[in-house]
Amino acid sequence: MRVLILGGDGYLGWPTCMAFAASGHTVMTIDNYSRRRIAAETDSDPLLISPNLQDRAKIFRAVTDRTVQVEIGDCADYAVISKLVSTFLPDVIVHYAEQPSAPYSMMGFEPARMTLNNNLNTTFNILQAMIAFAPDAHLIKLGTMGEYGTPNIDIEEGWLEVEHAGRRQKFLYPRQAGSLYHTTKVLDTDLIWFYVRTYGLRVTDLMQGPVYGIHTHDSQADSRLFPNFHYDDIFGTVINRFIVQAVAGMPLTVYGRGGQVRGYLNLIDTLQCVALAADTPADKGELRIFNQFTETFSVNELATRVQRVGRGLGFAVDIQAIANPRKELEEHYYNPKSTGLHELGLIPHVMTDDVLAGVMTEVARYRDRIDVGRIMPRVRWN
Amino acid sequence: MRVLILGGDGYLGWPTCMAFAASGHTVMTIDNYSRRRIAAETDSDPLLISPNLQDRAKIFRAVTDRTVQVEIGDCADYAVISKLVSTFLPDVIVHYAEQPSAPYSMMGFEPARMTLNNNLNTTFNILQAMIAFAPDAHLIKLGTMGEYGTPNIDIEEGWLEVEHAGRRQKFLYPRQAGSLYHTTKVLDTDLIWFYVRTYGLRVTDLMQGPVYGIHTHDSQADSRLFPNFHYDDIFGTVINRFIVQAVAGMPLTVYGRGGQVRGYLNLIDTLQCVALAADTPADKGELRIFNQFTETFSVNELATRVQRVGRGLGFAVDIQAIANPRKELEEHYYNPKSTGLHELGLIPHVMTDDVLAGVMTEVARYRDRIDVGRIMPRVRWN
Repeated sequence: MRVLILGGDGYLGWPTCMAFAASGHTVMTIDNYSRRRIAAETDSDPLLISPNLQDRAKIFRAVTDRTVQVEIGDCADYAVISKLVSTFLPDVIVHYAEQPSAPYSMMGFEPARMTLNNNLNTTFNILQAMIAFAPDAHLIKLGTMGEYGTPNIDIEEGWLEVEHAGRRQKFLYPRQAGSLYHTTKVLDTDLIWFYVRTYGLRVTDLMQGPVYGIHTHDSQADSRLFPNFHYDDIFGTVINRFIVQAVAGMPLTVYGRGGQVRGYLNLIDTLQCVALAADTPADKGELRIFNQFTETFSVNELATRVQRVGRGLGFAVDIQAIANPRKELEEHYYNPKSTGLHELGLIPHVMTDDVLAGVMTEVARYRDRIDVGRIMPRVRWN
Repeated sequence: MRVLILGGDGYLGWPTCMAFAASGHTVMTIDNYSRRRIAAETDSDPLLISPNLQDRAKIFRAVTDRTVQVEIGDCADYAVISKLVSTFLPDVIVHYAEQPSAPYSMMGFEPARMTLNNNLNTTFNILQAMIAFAPDAHLIKLGTMGEYGTPNIDIEEGWLEVEHAGRRQKFLYPRQAGSLYHTTKVLDTDLIWFYVRTYGLRVTDLMQGPVYGIHTHDSQADSRLFPNFHYDDIFGTVINRFIVQAVAGMPLTVYGRGGQVRGYLNLIDTLQCVALAADTPADKGELRIFNQFTETFSVNELATRVQRVGRGLGFAVDIQAIANPRKELEEHYYNPKSTGLHELGLIPHVMTDDVLAGVMTEVARYRDRIDVGRIMPRVRWN
């Protein structure tokens, strides 16, 4: 297949490029390095600064003899994306090209404006380019479980059949997110659903939970092929951040009461899910939605697990509750369904103590690169 | 009250400016004339081309001794709107500043891009300016009944209490609109609800049906104070368009089977609704939603009424079904609720034959200005 990956420089993007190329697909990726710019701007560089995309593609080619074609450009610019789609003619488009940080989106006017415009225009442009040049391509869009928020009813897989006053209607599951970033993903979903039903596009929208992990199959050969591993308050996800805190000898900082439950998955399962979606495309005119996670944990459960594993490896690990910088429920009902990806064949890699120990041991090799000043929350919701 | 009206040049905007000023409020309005530009670009000028806003404000002042302060500028530019909000310090902000044409939003890439970016950024900017400079102001936002689409269950007033698998949750009523324009209003609502619950803003979102009519109380004194009355396929709403067709001796063109039902209201009731909302503001942290219409009609019912009234006035009026340029259900369940505005005191002006005859007689005075070339649909959904 011809696979176009938007946002190939990211934590998920680069491993996805390698995985599709390693499987023998023709891979083209584009990125505008906005995550690098924001990381520099907010003092949030990752544990290891990855080589740029062209260099990573060269290293990957040297190691595997597989090619990832790279273009540096802005998907929010229609001239760029329309040229790319019309010349590359993808069968599959994987869309990661969004500003992915909730705290960044809440930092103030300009970061909020950038998040809204970048994310919406990127999605809009890719839909328009598909209509114009690739109406049969399959778009795999990264959404987030955060779109749903924490409703008091079960979270179904994308859609909700409502019975009301004796009549029935199936709707997009009502979404209510906890940050502007997450809200832009809600807007994306609304926009995508409009274009799917109006123009008969085929789209899979993956409502993904927070991802953890440092290695994928293809990154083992050379440390320069690592996904960028963030542990800061801007881009770091909670498990990776806890692991870095454990290694650095800092208490694991639980936001508020720690009863926030989310669905998590290992980075290697993200790759598995995207590959499964690509192998079995959505139908024309179908917006197929999967809830993409393998296990649910509360923040307190995660902290306890990381503490146990860390102590087992000889780290002194404490847990400390701090004021919650976010506006979110800290105790709530949470019962999200996830069956679609399992039906496609997903075999979960669950978060065992061994898995956590593996990430922690790898992080410990780069212990001297940890900057503890970028871990505590620097952005408050209001 | 200090009332800031965004989009004061429009069909609703200018009458709203006059009405608030006539009631003794301090009125400031801003417009970037984008509707005039689009009308020129698409050959869709209204029946009467209104003087520009400054001139209309001068005429209105000469006639009534009331002042409407005017600024020409773009609300999608934060520098403009933040300066205006921080210096004028409104108590009430009425937000009409959106690209309002569904067909225009479906014309192609550039009109779609403009609609998405103009509408979202205007809403985003006004929310940001409120947070920064007027956190206690009351935003009255014009949404549309079109946000709901035509679901198979009753359309409640903004919110839906869902019972699912034995548990209950109140959600924003799930929205699924029929054009990109209407979809931008859905995105607006999602964005507004995020900012309301995160920053405690007070907002009334008016889900308005199609409006008809040519005069308001304040426009009678001088024809130059008319609302801009569109009958074209781009900006014209169905009743106004039918009336012009009747006067011009053109068949009333029903799109498809004509079973499309919507909730309609007279322009003077729009003014009444906005005034009622302003007089009783939403609470801090409340997104109050009203369904704003007074009667529901199918397109066929409207055509039959206009035909009857037109024939009574001596016009030869035929009805002709044409291929539907839109993608919409042409027969459907439709039961929208509307109680909130009535509870605030709305006294509806219903669409009697006399009301229709009044508009038709007024339109007939300008019969030689009707350009029949701009009435038939020039934009198809796909």
